[in-house]
Amino acid sequence: MKKIKVGILGATGMVGQQYLQRLKEHPWFEISFLASSETSAGKKYKDAVENRWYQKEPLDNELGKLSIHSIEDIESCHKNCHFVFSALPTNAAKIYEEKYASAEIPEISNASYHRASIDVPVLLPEVNAKHLELIHYQQKRRGWKKGFIVVKPNCSLQSYVIPLEALRKQFPLKKILVTTLQAISGAGYPGISALDIHDNIIPFIQGEEEKSEQEPLKIWGTLERDKILPSNDIQLSVHCNRVPVMDGHMACVSVEFAHKPSSEAIIEAWQNFRGEPQKLDLPEAPSQPIVYKQEINRPQTRLDRMEGNGMAITVGRLRECPIFHYRFVGLSHNTIRGAAGGGILNAELIYKQGYIY
Amino acid sequence: MKKIKVGILGATGMVGQQYLQRLKEHPWFEISFLASSETSAGKKYKDAVENRWYQKEPLDNELGKLSIHSIEDIESCHKNCHFVFSALPTNAAKIYEEKYASAEIPEISNASYHRASIDVPVLLPEVNAKHLELIHYQQKRRGWKKGFIVVKPNCSLQSYVIPLEALRKQFPLKKILVTTLQAISGAGYPGISALDIHDNIIPFIQGEEEKSEQEPLKIWGTLERDKILPSNDIQLSVHCNRVPVMDGHMACVSVEFAHKPSSEAIIEAWQNFRGEPQKLDLPEAPSQPIVYKQEINRPQTRLDRMEGNGMAITVGRLRECPIFHYRFVGLSHNTIRGAAGGGILNAELIYKQGYIY
Amino acid sequence: MKKIKVGILGATGMVGQQYLQRLKEHPWFEISFLASSETSAGKKYKDAVENRWYQKEPLDNELGKLSIHSIEDIESCHKNCHFVFSALPTNAAKIYEEKYASAEIPEISNASYHRASIDVPVLLPEVNAKHLELIHYQQKRRGWKKGFIVVKPNCSLQSYVIPLEALRKQFPLKKILVTTLQAISGAGYPGISALDIHDNIIPFIQGEEEKSEQEPLKIWGTLERDKILPSNDIQLSVHCNRVPVMDGHMACVSVEFAHKPSSEAIIEAWQNFRGEPQKLDLPEAPSQPIVYKQEINRPQTRLDRMEGNGMAITVGRLRECPIFHYRFVGLSHNTIRGAAGGGILNAELIYKQGYIY
Amino acid sequence: MKKIKVGILGATGMVGQQYLQRLKEHPWFEISFLASSETSAGKKYKDAVENRWYQKEPLDNELGKLSIHSIEDIESCHKNCHFVFSALPTNAAKIYEEKYASAEIPEISNASYHRASIDVPVLLPEVNAKHLELIHYQQKRRGWKKGFIVVKPNCSLQSYVIPLEALRKQFPLKKILVTTLQAISGAGYPGISALDIHDNIIPFIQGEEEKSEQEPLKIWGTLERDKILPSNDIQLSVHCNRVPVMDGHMACVSVEFAHKPSSEAIIEAWQNFRGEPQKLDLPEAPSQPIVYKQEINRPQTRLDRMEGNGMAITVGRLRECPIFHYRFVGLSHNTIRGAAGGGILNAELIYKQGYIY
Repeated sequence: MKKIKVGILGATGMVGQQYLQRLKEHPWFEISFLASSETSAGKKYKDAVENRWYQKEPLDNELGKLSIHSIEDIESCHKNCHFVFSALPTNAAKIYEEKYASAEIPEISNASYHRASIDVPVLLPEVNAKHLELIHYQQKRRGWKKGFIVVKPNCSLQSYVIPLEALRKQFPLKKILVTTLQAISGAGYPGISALDIHDNIIPFIQGEEEKSEQEPLKIWGTLERDKILPSNDIQLSVHCNRVPVMDGHMACVSVEFAHKPSSEAIIEAWQNFRGEPQKLDLPEAPSQPIVYKQEINRPQTRLDRMEGNGMAITVGRLRECPIFHYRFVGLSHNTIRGAAGGGILNAELIYKQGYIY
Repeated sequence: MKKIKVGILGATGMVGQQYLQRLKEHPWFEISFLASSETSAGKKYKDAVENRWYQKEPLDNELGKLSIHSIEDIESCHKNCHFVFSALPTNAAKIYEEKYASAEIPEISNASYHRASIDVPVLLPEVNAKHLELIHYQQKRRGWKKGFIVVKPNCSLQSYVIPLEALRKQFPLKKILVTTLQAISGAGYPGISALDIHDNIIPFIQGEEEKSEQEPLKIWGTLERDKILPSNDIQLSVHCNRVPVMDGHMACVSVEFAHKPSSEAIIEAWQNFRGEPQKLDLPEAPSQPIVYKQEINRPQTRLDRMEGNGMAITVGRLRECPIFHYRFVGLSHNTIRGAAGGGILNAELIYKQGYIY
Repeated sequence: MKKIKVGILGATGMVGQQYLQRLKEHPWFEISFLASSETSAGKKYKDAVENRWYQKEPLDNELGKLSIHSIEDIESCHKNCHFVFSALPTNAAKIYEEKYASAEIPEISNASYHRASIDVPVLLPEVNAKHLELIHYQQKRRGWKKGFIVVKPNCSLQSYVIPLEALRKQFPLKKILVTTLQAISGAGYPGISALDIHDNIIPFIQGEEEKSEQEPLKIWGTLERDKILPSNDIQLSVHCNRVPVMDGHMACVSVEFAHKPSSEAIIEAWQNFRGEPQKLDLPEAPSQPIVYKQEINRPQTRLDRMEGNGMAITVGRLRECPIFHYRFVGLSHNTIRGAAGGGILNAELIYKQGYIY
Repeated sequence: MKKIKVGILGATGMVGQQYLQRLKEHPWFEISFLASSETSAGKKYKDAVENRWYQKEPLDNELGKLSIHSIEDIESCHKNCHFVFSALPTNAAKIYEEKYASAEIPEISNASYHRASIDVPVLLPEVNAKHLELIHYQQKRRGWKKGFIVVKPNCSLQSYVIPLEALRKQFPLKKILVTTLQAISGAGYPGISALDIHDNIIPFIQGEEEKSEQEPLKIWGTLERDKILPSNDIQLSVHCNRVPVMDGHMACVSVEFAHKPSSEAIIEAWQNFRGEPQKLDLPEAPSQPIVYKQEINRPQTRLDRMEGNGMAITVGRLRECPIFHYRFVGLSHNTIRGAAGGGILNAELIYKQGYIY
């Protein structure tokens, strides 16, 4: 099979680096274009990330030799790629994402800028694959033919939205109260000063609670002809904390259903849950998207974040809540499932459904 | 004023060390007896804690020269002390606390063993000073004249019970959902292995959720003639996490009242709150027991745990909750307010009320 | 090729777990026997390590089903294995290692107990493969036919001995002054209390400086007919610190040669260095055993410890020393190269040289 | 006694904050002027440091109400202060330190800019109080009457220079090889990204090794009529590491003397050492400037950094070195002794000697 050519916008940042690492042996996609801000443009990738390569594995030699284009060089991108991943910071996303899409380059974005746009799907493949139909209306509305924008949700919510999705069809959700414990890598680089987080908890992350409360309701929303109506029968409260761990966002969840299920039924639903990515056997999809840990003290951030190659959600500690029906703990890897891995899974689903060609 | 002589049971452990540090310049109390298990008995204190002195300040020279008695040597204790602090581990507390009380030595304990005993007050001085009247019934029931046992509550709950107490009289509480982020020093020494908590969150602490849910209801309970009836009109759910910080237990709280107050009224209630320790101007009492932080990202564990010399509770981030009425964050120092400092405050209140003589 | 059957003694401890993980897809070896102390004997492996599985990757399902034998059950071991890895603690190593060898089971050990025995090679395959000839004399002396004991060196020294070995032949060494910064995983489990190492440096590790100074001289020693004479022309001083990182032992090295080489010659020697494992293309051998980092601030513990799948040594910051000739920084992964990975490499070399059959 | 009025240049940064905290109850000095860059000028101090107050103790209420002047407002400074502390970053120090001194304002600086200037003393009060005579020549040479500049040395060297000074007179030093383990607070704020130092060691600090090798030789230098000749009979090699601790710089030292003393003589010299600050009984001076820890595993960073209110140097682990005569470990608090505390001690000595009036 001839590989699909992909570009990475914002290739030198932390999320860009993760795309590079994670795509280097991808069975379908092949990196053929890297773009960054003017400071890195023209350099070889390995020179541009010297002293700021943050991945555990060393940089691949061949990828290190690729030249970096200016983010302005949309023409080269158009010639070289079937689609792009956007790992741009919000400000740059605001300027360039529509430019690239207008140039008929499909765009799978990690940026938050378009998540609230009514014609842009916020895609979590195990949950709302059906929302991709909105691409047709987006293209029609905006006058694009091949170009479009699909965004992935904020990294904080995979740990509770996917486990709750596994229950939602059988046991409609009423109230969800979440407290997150989020890793420092979620803030990018340089991100948080060591002096701020060393031996410390910061019970606040700018804009994070809003995203963590609003995006799930859009993901669980109903697709009308040309827009998504957010779910309005679920109450969701999310408090977000920054904690001194490297990777892995944890969620402590209390949930009330329309009717209380048995705990056995919940665990069974988690273990049997399979979403569209599993049905289509997508390369990045974990075979078991939700892994229930029987041990009383799991999931733990460092021990469980790599489950399913960083793409599975681990859950544990299911027990009754004195106020709502149940409590549990969820965990997902914020820079894999919550960033590059999640973006690649989005791309695989979108490609498989024929939106990229 | 001639000082009251006090003993410390379990003097070499972490909490015992904290008592030692904190009592060395106490205006009312003077250390005159130290007891420990057989391994340390007979040694000088400084030799017994060599290589295991965990306090920030160096050990006081004079206190270091004190000899350690065997915990069995109740007679010496009786001769030398007006009362004792018990920093014994649960197993030892089970054996010795009643023995000491039977020997007519008043006992102010940090151990959890007697917290559920119906005739033993769980004292949080800003909240339930009135429960001390139970001492008379305890003495009568058990045939003790001067001896008694009063315990302090678990270190996890000060961060939410005291701020909620400040609201409770004006605005009766209905539902309280808490997630805690608790420091490693809460587990004592050696406590947690570095390999377990380094770069990790452990969403489980043995027995902690039970204590965190039950003890507040006893503290808020009604004193009947000879026992305390736990509050039965409040629903309380507490999820406990261990996080990699040295000191400071944080609580993320969602609360529903009988009637929703304004946020201004809540902040005012916090700022104006004064308990019995403040009214009596007890030496260990923080003049401002609850400190509300205006900054959007406070309280933070490392920055705020020492507020009020480690005895104040800091609160912040008061805001509406999409499910309950309000959300906020509370913080207390687990080894000061939650351990030795809290114990000393208990002793001061008890002494001032005439139970020790 | 039919696989060689291997056993693991001390299978449930941290090093034992690493052997299990690392051997699960080994091309030559296959795990067929697990032994542990009485507390775990009889259990399935997965039950025995429940709540104490410390590896990043989840436990392999098939290996989890293996039963654990008592360490006393040498007969079963003899029937089931061609050789064993010993990950026993020192006390157990003292009792059992000779018993297993007497039962004619070759033993490749991580324990320190036999490192000073004059007829036991301390094997670092890139350095002293030739010392394996001592096995014949060991067997003769002790009356063993197939059984023998070979030990691997302490985990602290790979970071400086291998880089210095690459220089030693061309540029004889005179004086080596080393300061190490060693990870918490080096102390095993539970090992170090979080309270001891959180936000702290401990400039002392029991017995470590002695091992770090003596073992290199034995490794660089001369094989006489029936014993190894430690090198006596090198002065070696090693100061050891425990630092709050998970994995990776770093060494800051100052070195004086008989004659001062150029820095180019040193870097070239490092880059071109290949030991016996590389010549034999052993499965566990890193193709490039020493990786020189050009960046001014490398190697760094978290970024570089996994170089060469955790088996390579990274070096950097080569520069002149105001007192000795040169200074540099070395880094090796203490639980891979310094423990299970190093042990497996030893086994591969020993097997390839025909000592196991 | 009427207090001396002092200003703080760079008052909002980390070191500036420490000056504020540490001076608030000073018996001789009183803060009467705060200056900062244009962004903070005109604000109240408490507003300027909101969300970036990094001290353990809350900001003093009265000091928080002080207004911040522009660093350009030298005239106000002249009117309000007898002298200033400069906590300016290097770039600003380059511009403003001479301006303030030209305006006849004595300046005690933490900045590195003037440390190599031949007419500027690098003052470590226990070591080279005599170098203050250079102030006369500096004033003469530069045409200043009351103004002058004295700088304090880099924060890395107190941990080894002071202990070595205690030995130097009796036992002349020949070779000193040091490896430092330095805290993250040494890099200021925001300083180091959490992603760079979390679970990591960085074996490089920009410019630090040069300062750590050159400044001690100037401090130990000989005062000629109008300049300081650096010591040329000591060889000094310093390797610097950044480690994940909050505060406290540790040094692992190997030292060779002209003649080898006994270890008892060394320990005695440390315990008996008193410098000019102790003789003059300066308020900031620790009564015991060097504290020798008998325990085999001390000093430890978290446990010992506050010794002598953060102003004492703790040493330990004195033992023979296989290459040089002895090895030991030194520790000093980098933001107290190494920054504001050290600056205040400098000011006290300078004031006591009559250079400020």
